Amino acid sequence: MLPPGKATDSGIAMVLSGLDRGDLVIDGGNSDFRDAGRRGALLRSAGCRFMDVGVSGGVWGHINGYGITAGGEDADFAAVAPLLSSLAADGLPFHVGPVGAGHFAKMVHNAVEYAVMQAYAEGFELLTASELDVDVAKTFAAWQTGCSIRSWLLGQLVVALSANPSLAGIPARAGDSGMGRWAVEESVRLGVPIPGIAAAVFARFGSQRADSPGMQAVAALRQQVGGHVAPSAPRDGVLP
Amino acid sequence: MLPPGKATDSGIAMVLSGLDRGDLVIDGGNSDFRDAGRRGALLRSAGCRFMDVGVSGGVWGHINGYGITAGGEDADFAAVAPLLSSLAADGLPFHVGPVGAGHFAKMVHNAVEYAVMQAYAEGFELLTASELDVDVAKTFAAWQTGCSIRSWLLGQLVVALSANPSLAGIPARAGDSGMGRWAVEESVRLGVPIPGIAAAVFARFGSQRADSPGMQAVAALRQQVGGHVAPSAPRDGVLP
Amino acid sequence: MLPPGKATDSGIAMVLSGLDRGDLVIDGGNSDFRDAGRRGALLRSAGCRFMDVGVSGGVWGHINGYGITAGGEDADFAAVAPLLSSLAADGLPFHVGPVGAGHFAKMVHNAVEYAVMQAYAEGFELLTASELDVDVAKTFAAWQTGCSIRSWLLGQLVVALSANPSLAGIPARAGDSGMGRWAVEESVRLGVPIPGIAAAVFARFGSQRADSPGMQAVAALRQQVGGHVAPSAPRDGVLP
Amino acid sequence: MLPPGKATDSGIAMVLSGLDRGDLVIDGGNSDFRDAGRRGALLRSAGCRFMDVGVSGGVWGHINGYGITAGGEDADFAAVAPLLSSLAADGLPFHVGPVGAGHFAKMVHNAVEYAVMQAYAEGFELLTASELDVDVAKTFAAWQTGCSIRSWLLGQLVVALSANPSLAGIPARAGDSGMGRWAVEESVRLGVPIPGIAAAVFARFGSQRADSPGMQAVAALRQQVGGHVAPSAPRDGVLP
Repeated sequence: MLPPGKATDSGIAMVLSGLDRGDLVIDGGNSDFRDAGRRGALLRSAGCRFMDVGVSGGVWGHINGYGITAGGEDADFAAVAPLLSSLAADGLPFHVGPVGAGHFAKMVHNAVEYAVMQAYAEGFELLTASELDVDVAKTFAAWQTGCSIRSWLLGQLVVALSANPSLAGIPARAGDSGMGRWAVEESVRLGVPIPGIAAAVFARFGSQRADSPGMQAVAALRQQVGGHVAPSAPRDGVLP
Repeated sequence: MLPPGKATDSGIAMVLSGLDRGDLVIDGGNSDFRDAGRRGALLRSAGCRFMDVGVSGGVWGHINGYGITAGGEDADFAAVAPLLSSLAADGLPFHVGPVGAGHFAKMVHNAVEYAVMQAYAEGFELLTASELDVDVAKTFAAWQTGCSIRSWLLGQLVVALSANPSLAGIPARAGDSGMGRWAVEESVRLGVPIPGIAAAVFARFGSQRADSPGMQAVAALRQQVGGHVAPSAPRDGVLP
Repeated sequence: MLPPGKATDSGIAMVLSGLDRGDLVIDGGNSDFRDAGRRGALLRSAGCRFMDVGVSGGVWGHINGYGITAGGEDADFAAVAPLLSSLAADGLPFHVGPVGAGHFAKMVHNAVEYAVMQAYAEGFELLTASELDVDVAKTFAAWQTGCSIRSWLLGQLVVALSANPSLAGIPARAGDSGMGRWAVEESVRLGVPIPGIAAAVFARFGSQRADSPGMQAVAALRQQVGGHVAPSAPRDGVLP
Repeated sequence: MLPPGKATDSGIAMVLSGLDRGDLVIDGGNSDFRDAGRRGALLRSAGCRFMDVGVSGGVWGHINGYGITAGGEDADFAAVAPLLSSLAADGLPFHVGPVGAGHFAKMVHNAVEYAVMQAYAEGFELLTASELDVDVAKTFAAWQTGCSIRSWLLGQLVVALSANPSLAGIPARAGDSGMGRWAVEESVRLGVPIPGIAAAVFARFGSQRADSPGMQAVAALRQQVGGHVAPSAPRDGVLP
């Protein structure tokens, strides 16, 4: 499990000379699935075997067990199943397809996760914005108790809100680790519409920037067209 | 629990004459939260009390218990807490704010549910479209086992896929029950960006129509501008 | 031509007592089309006539002539056509339907304008972000000279960029005058997907706020799930 | 001007042997800007020169002149300016940056065009869906006459609508030529949010498919969760 990209390639190169024929290398990191074929071929050409295994569950996986989507050949999966079982939630690792499929499934998983997080975030913002005096943290606790949208992620947000109901001090910036971007690239290659995932990825991009040339362009256009002057400094978090 | 709108208004009108002072009417349906204030005032003017209670959990709530977000006064919630507890998951109903807050929380819940369903649906379509020969149903089962996106809704999709792995015969059309629309209306009233929820609502709208005047307009434009002729009949589900 | 809403209602009320039977009131402001029917009925009940007339063209209409979409009865349009012609671009006002249709057409026009502005803005941001050393202002000038996306709005942006090629000092905030919001409301009432217009409206909402509770929620979730710490202060406008 | 990709590479390879030192090759097709650097290096290594020139204006450019965004060195642009001027609208070609910039500017142009077409298309669908009996074709003609959104593209749609006001017989399918996809890929590489362009690209993807596995997944989820049965056959173009 190494950082994706060069670190993983270097890692494979480093161990390669020490491998015996038939040895099996498992890439358990968050690698780009498009690298799996190349790495598998490299190892096969050295008489070795390769699997790409997506591992999910966050920092809590060491307690709950991990979610495991393995890509590779049947015999290879059978060989490492006991090892993966010892890590997997409910002792159940899943073999989802040939080499590449494991990290593809993990990439799609993470892209879905972006969109699910965004869904809860939009709900949080609607509740916060309402004049109805809704108890936001209590509403999230209610949603986690019997409501259709209850989930492991929602539970995490309930924990965060119980400690800090207004998320005071949390910066409104969300990084991204690359998998959401790869999923968008793959969607345009495949011609598959994924507006919800893309909305989540773009929302993070917006949060990562201190400026917004696009919104400057809209403001410049409005000024030019209609004599609209851009609203001045924000008041109470919302512009007049 | 009546259908929202006129049926609920008629229901209240029907029982109103038989109510004694201090009686409490609970609207447990999927009502528009913007009707709660008016209904509460009507009942107060007759010396009665009113609560709006969001109830979630789908048809499975009778087994798992329901998710309950109640709006109303403290004393009223205290009075009916035992009754609500007998219905609620873990015996825990939640009082989330004054009259209106219960159905507002339910509306936001359902809007979030649209976006979460859309997220899983986009993941399903990416997996299905890939040339990698991923076992889609097994991937969803893996996601439900230790992965970060595991949830009650995902579990429902795992059940559906285990019975019908390719969803053969399921029409690609999804209705909507109104709450997603209300949430979008509320977002523009409040000035809150909810691109993920809107994407989910619009995807359903698209699925509900057999035609698409908008795409006809794009096709007409392309034909006019560049001599592009619209692609002819689909082949294998995807146009050339 | 009065501000939409109460000001227009007050204006009509103010002149109503001084009207003779058969007098014609024209609402030429940016009114909500959903008010037109009510106002038309009010005037008809006083023996008068009513038209709703959308007027476009920005502050430059006094030079170029205005774009005019009139709603009302045939005879009424015929009666005022000379007057409207004197204001209209090319002397051509357009009668687009019965009472309500004029302001509906104007609302849709403005919603389309939001999306077109957003399209140019996204192009501006892509050009600005590239490492290729593209001359952004010159590119916009090129687009206005024979390219398919040339338009009156693009011309306005070319003017703004020729004076201020990097839009230095223009705040990244864009207000909205309500018509985009009404169009989104109407889209959910009609069940029509308008993802492009909604994206433009939501981008403005985002720009109008100094905070983003939604992105705080995503950041809190990432922190809770994966131990991701939110990126700190921005560097060179983009976070690391 | 050859089809992008292999055809252009083959074309360059084919002429390469016949080139003299100092000869200049212009790629005037819709090439991927990411190929320009490689092609420029190839030609330089043969002692030749290379420019990437975006050409816009559709099939009407032979009447109106073309919109031209040229990438390359100053001396090279100066050398071919007379030639490009003879093709350009107003005799004005534009030199927008070094090699790669010409096709980058064209790619962004086309991506913006997708979003602008989508904007008009959404306006068309809103007008068509309204119960107000709006004259849709006349409204588009009005928009082109003095309204802020008037443009060359809108003019093309006015022409199409004047011949076929309801776009009867035009299939609701819009292909794409790749540049929109490249722009989305570039946006995720650069971390730039382009929700409007992405919405337009995804709308085309949706129109290109006869099926929608994603909407089947939503329908399956709704059926599983709430006992909602998917609506049956469409009636009058809209599902009940």
